[in-house]
Amino acid sequence: MHIQSVTTRDRRFTLADGAGSDAIHRTPQYSYAVCVLKTDAATEGIGLAFTLGAGNDLVCRAIDYLSEPLVGREIEELMADFGTTYRALADSPSLRWLGPHKGVVHLALAALVNACFDLWAKSRQLPLWKLLLDLSPEALVNTLDLSYLEDVLTRRQAIDLLTKSQATRSCRENVLKTGYKGYDTSVGWFNFSDERIVANTKTAMDRGFTALKLKVGSTDPQRDLRRAELIRETAGDAATIMLDANQRWNVPQALTICRELSRINPFWIEEPTHPDDVLGHRAIADAMAPYKVATGEHIPNKVIFKNFLQAGAMAFCQVDAVRVGGISEFLTVSLLAKQLNIPVVPHVGDMGQIHQHLVLFNHIGMEHENLFLEHIPHLRPYFTHPADLVRGYYQVPQEPGSSSDLID
Amino acid sequence: MHIQSVTTRDRRFTLADGAGSDAIHRTPQYSYAVCVLKTDAATEGIGLAFTLGAGNDLVCRAIDYLSEPLVGREIEELMADFGTTYRALADSPSLRWLGPHKGVVHLALAALVNACFDLWAKSRQLPLWKLLLDLSPEALVNTLDLSYLEDVLTRRQAIDLLTKSQATRSCRENVLKTGYKGYDTSVGWFNFSDERIVANTKTAMDRGFTALKLKVGSTDPQRDLRRAELIRETAGDAATIMLDANQRWNVPQALTICRELSRINPFWIEEPTHPDDVLGHRAIADAMAPYKVATGEHIPNKVIFKNFLQAGAMAFCQVDAVRVGGISEFLTVSLLAKQLNIPVVPHVGDMGQIHQHLVLFNHIGMEHENLFLEHIPHLRPYFTHPADLVRGYYQVPQEPGSSSDLID
Repeated sequence: MHIQSVTTRDRRFTLADGAGSDAIHRTPQYSYAVCVLKTDAATEGIGLAFTLGAGNDLVCRAIDYLSEPLVGREIEELMADFGTTYRALADSPSLRWLGPHKGVVHLALAALVNACFDLWAKSRQLPLWKLLLDLSPEALVNTLDLSYLEDVLTRRQAIDLLTKSQATRSCRENVLKTGYKGYDTSVGWFNFSDERIVANTKTAMDRGFTALKLKVGSTDPQRDLRRAELIRETAGDAATIMLDANQRWNVPQALTICRELSRINPFWIEEPTHPDDVLGHRAIADAMAPYKVATGEHIPNKVIFKNFLQAGAMAFCQVDAVRVGGISEFLTVSLLAKQLNIPVVPHVGDMGQIHQHLVLFNHIGMEHENLFLEHIPHLRPYFTHPADLVRGYYQVPQEPGSSSDLID
Repeated sequence: MHIQSVTTRDRRFTLADGAGSDAIHRTPQYSYAVCVLKTDAATEGIGLAFTLGAGNDLVCRAIDYLSEPLVGREIEELMADFGTTYRALADSPSLRWLGPHKGVVHLALAALVNACFDLWAKSRQLPLWKLLLDLSPEALVNTLDLSYLEDVLTRRQAIDLLTKSQATRSCRENVLKTGYKGYDTSVGWFNFSDERIVANTKTAMDRGFTALKLKVGSTDPQRDLRRAELIRETAGDAATIMLDANQRWNVPQALTICRELSRINPFWIEEPTHPDDVLGHRAIADAMAPYKVATGEHIPNKVIFKNFLQAGAMAFCQVDAVRVGGISEFLTVSLLAKQLNIPVVPHVGDMGQIHQHLVLFNHIGMEHENLFLEHIPHLRPYFTHPADLVRGYYQVPQEPGSSSDLID
């Protein structure tokens, strides 16, 4: 199957009634820069990158600039050594001055890379998770670019890690029967009233969720505390509650407020400060212990993840395949995190569509902990195969590809 | 003077014959995304952001998106509280998902911010350095956004630092008579032959330069070593020689090669590895001591600079006002660096046009060391007031504004 052309679509979805709001982003418009690989068959590869609307067209334009070398390539031949192509694209000598490995151009790379993996899985008639599990350790590592990680993870170490995991896979394949647990992010969006978050909490628990997220970062920290206590009271002591500040605090503020919020026994506090501040997160993590810090949705590449992981600045790694350089860099970061013994709990800019595949692979193929995956339902009507949750568990996707197809 | 409209120009300049080449970027096309503020007077504010060509149009488009809130603003009123505007633009809730504070959108902010400072100085009929020196500490700090730096530099500390510097300014104003020393980056571009770098070294020294830069990062490290030794032999032991790897090495490679290159007694080694790798730079700096690491041209914002400075990962801070969020963020990073006692030696994506002003202010107004400023002559023909060097010293610019006007 050959890639004949690369086109883009700029898809933006307005959310209703406070959904998606956080302390920084009050009226988000969930948007995808969509990369479409057309082939000599009927099959199309679809790749997503996630933005909040404005500038989504810039990502589409950047896809046009990056994609030229892929036209004419045969998909199996391309993916057999995709790491080399990835690096050549990521280090495109002029475009990398717009990064490198961050911002609009790197989001464009995400969409392009994701389309390649989607096409690859579709061409083999396999769901992405199954494609990844079928690859040998060498073949998997050949899809990655491990440059600039050599001080922490060499190619040899990556292959060894995957090979070692293969021996014990059968112990972890039970997840293909149970499905992968989800957690509900949508009970406590920032703009929601107290009444609404209480009602949402009840509904979520009735539907089988036992892990919930609340947006914090209010101008008045007492609002955060009140809402957090409301959810804790409603959900009970056994529930898992995560708090998400979306970068709202500076380091001294975070140190003070996190201490107060720890009263409700949060499972993690997410994005307590600026996403580039490795040492700030480390200081907050130290001060908050035994409570834990999660971050990742705004960390653009493997090198910054490496620093966060090395510094002990994140206890949960929230890498997102539609926010870093695609599935390839997601897997690279997952290997890094495994090497440094930190669990991966993806952020889902893709609404879990792609990540429902990736967490299955991470758990079975890489021995990452079977924890839970974020669930956000707001774009269900727009996907051809929306992720299906039953009693709070993602059902194992069976359709070929990465479940990224959007209804026109 | 009111801003009536904001337009952009996409200017790209092809360089001749290997000029500008480095280990990563072999055929650069020096380019500016130019922001033009038109006013109700004849005066225009001109702001530059620097790229290597491809995607320069994306930066121009992002300027269009960011600039809307500035239309109609009166320049004195705008600049009296510019820090607030800066933060609002940098944290534009949707566009910040394309960063935040990095990549295409942040480069667009650079051009916009630089145009505001240029217009402000022109409207007062002052060269930028003089405008900045005339501001009170409070007025200067009002042009900055110090958010996310509070753990290292508060507003009060910034004002105190500037106030303390004011008392001793007269000791440092001699630089207005001597001019600011330049260093020559153009003797040793990566693609130049051995003969050419020897000839260039001789010419540079004949013209009064005593500090020179050589590009390293060859596939064969012996080429780097040979060229470095050639320049050292030609220039003599008294000359200051800087080596620049442009991110070519991973950390283990850098540790090995830097040790070998230290034989020629380099003043610094620049960008030894990936620009996001704070801890990698720290490891290299530790291993190279007493030789020193410089970096900054690919560090996009104050938060990452904060981490580099906190970690002891850079001995020279090469912040560039056309690569971070403009003159405002340049000054913010300069204050941070002063607070943490690290000299600022800017990278000059602007070919020194704006930075010739900024180093005068940094030295006189902020007590930064009077070291030297990079000089690159390749775009002289295109500037209305090209920087003027005499016997290796930048002459103090006298034209109103930031010397950013380009010939059409």
